[in-house]
Amino acid sequence: MAISVIGYAAASATSELAPYRFERRDPRGDDVVIEILYCGVCHSDLHIARNDWGGALYPVVPGHEIVGRVTALGKDVTRFKIGDAVGVGCLVDSCRDCEDCEHGQEQYCENKVFTYNSIDPKDGSLTQGGYSKTIVVSDRFVLKVPKGIDLKGAAPLLCAGITTYSPLRHWLADENDKVAIIGLGGLGHMGLKLAKAFGAEVTLFTRSPGKEEDAKRLGADHVVLSTDEKQMAAVKGKFDLIIDTVPYDHDLNPYIPALSVNGTLVLVGYLGPLGTPLNTAPLVLQRKAVGGSLIGGLPETQEMLDFCAEHGITADVEVIAMADINKAYERLLKSDVKYRFVIDMATLKA
Amino acid sequence: MAISVIGYAAASATSELAPYRFERRDPRGDDVVIEILYCGVCHSDLHIARNDWGGALYPVVPGHEIVGRVTALGKDVTRFKIGDAVGVGCLVDSCRDCEDCEHGQEQYCENKVFTYNSIDPKDGSLTQGGYSKTIVVSDRFVLKVPKGIDLKGAAPLLCAGITTYSPLRHWLADENDKVAIIGLGGLGHMGLKLAKAFGAEVTLFTRSPGKEEDAKRLGADHVVLSTDEKQMAAVKGKFDLIIDTVPYDHDLNPYIPALSVNGTLVLVGYLGPLGTPLNTAPLVLQRKAVGGSLIGGLPETQEMLDFCAEHGITADVEVIAMADINKAYERLLKSDVKYRFVIDMATLKA
Repeated sequence: MAISVIGYAAASATSELAPYRFERRDPRGDDVVIEILYCGVCHSDLHIARNDWGGALYPVVPGHEIVGRVTALGKDVTRFKIGDAVGVGCLVDSCRDCEDCEHGQEQYCENKVFTYNSIDPKDGSLTQGGYSKTIVVSDRFVLKVPKGIDLKGAAPLLCAGITTYSPLRHWLADENDKVAIIGLGGLGHMGLKLAKAFGAEVTLFTRSPGKEEDAKRLGADHVVLSTDEKQMAAVKGKFDLIIDTVPYDHDLNPYIPALSVNGTLVLVGYLGPLGTPLNTAPLVLQRKAVGGSLIGGLPETQEMLDFCAEHGITADVEVIAMADINKAYERLLKSDVKYRFVIDMATLKA
Repeated sequence: MAISVIGYAAASATSELAPYRFERRDPRGDDVVIEILYCGVCHSDLHIARNDWGGALYPVVPGHEIVGRVTALGKDVTRFKIGDAVGVGCLVDSCRDCEDCEHGQEQYCENKVFTYNSIDPKDGSLTQGGYSKTIVVSDRFVLKVPKGIDLKGAAPLLCAGITTYSPLRHWLADENDKVAIIGLGGLGHMGLKLAKAFGAEVTLFTRSPGKEEDAKRLGADHVVLSTDEKQMAAVKGKFDLIIDTVPYDHDLNPYIPALSVNGTLVLVGYLGPLGTPLNTAPLVLQRKAVGGSLIGGLPETQEMLDFCAEHGITADVEVIAMADINKAYERLLKSDVKYRFVIDMATLKA
């Protein structure tokens, strides 16, 4: 008794996304059936649809910033009831047994199952994401969307939000810390809002002039043009934490001097070899570090949603119709979005 | 009334070290005058004598692993008395006023003064190191050598000891942590001893077979041949902390998989660009970091000396005569020392 679902899928690396009918599993005892209301458009969606990273499993229905309402529940589910507003992020399962799972760091579990483009080890099926009307997810991987939060603005919290929240939570010592965010895209704009809400003094590093007004509205106290040597010299030794949201290879060396002693630059956007050799001398000479961080675990993601509700934080979104996804991808490639596309799933007719 | 001192100096990048007479300052109120008994031979001594890093100021009297006895005191010094066993490490002064100095992290002060090859901002003189009979150092930068510790084995603690102690102290969460040391030289052998004394499970990474027995005697529980892919695969995800003592450019990527989630690889030996591009993907995917660490501050160095006395730790040394320093440098270049040369300054006649 599988559930027939309509979604949008890429049939190959060179295909535009197009309507695609597929089946979701018959709910297991611990499953939550969710009618998807909104789904954010993450840069990863595009990368995987076009197989930029290799390993794409077609047809792929992207989408891992999912907000919806519960329409049915497996018999063992007690945390949710029909009609609840819920969210699903980048993960729909994990081994549940390793040290990382035990510590609620499911994102670092070696056997985690991504929301799309993964094989579900329980039944061998290909997971399919949120560009669709319905999703079936085990209750451990379903988040409660707090009352009062705007649902379309909440969708991007499930990836862009938690990706910037987690390093703030992990590395920030206290509210006196100084934080910088590199890049003002979907991740960067969440980074500014969240760092500000944590009480930090917040700086945006950007390569593009003219972002001052918007950055300050989003939470930045200062904006530094990273191409301007004088401005870079003026922030020497300043930051306890720099969150680097840039999604492509770039030279990290110019940002290291801006770290304080004991400071850390945390990559959340770029996964790959650094084309420009990293100089270890400034790391050694002032006990600095370069690290990375991946989304967040389930308990931390719930904490982030609650934090956002408490502080009135959602993403700045541009709502689009499902049929406009291919145009949205082209605009995404030109960074022409402030700051996240969100698909209104009501525009997708079953 | 300056003090005339005999030492060994390099007159240029291509000169062998040779006897050299120079003057130490007349003691200021806060100064301690020290008769040097032993001085360790650090790889940096050779690098600076030969101007491998640029910036050498000749004539240079190397040496920053100094142990001796107090022979005179400035009028304001109360912490020491004549005859005390004392030590001097890599630093002889700092600004004393910045945040780092206030926190006892003088090693990260921007205006720190190195024991040799630095200009003393107070009188414009060139600092000269421990390959000499006498040194004059401000009391804040003089360490107490605990009673009962072997003085010649204590000398290398002032650089090799504190360089490996400080990252253990900074990054180790508790005694359940698993630590690896890369490289079995002067730094590496201290890393094994100290990590073991901290209670950690200790592994040595080495490129050379045949070090098993010695490594285990020094404190290693396990030895991993880093050129053996099977052995490397077997330690995947194991280490909370890897201290990398290798003093030349090398590929860090093979060691990153051996870090646990949240683990850090800390460079203490190599300062320069990484010739092999660092891949950021494993850093992001498992919240790992690459950092660096430089010697230690004065309070931490005293703590380390006390810790070593308590745990019966000194360096394994080969004592040499001052006149044999040039031969020792040649052997150092071939890693032909177990594990630190220490000059017996009694062999240098005034």
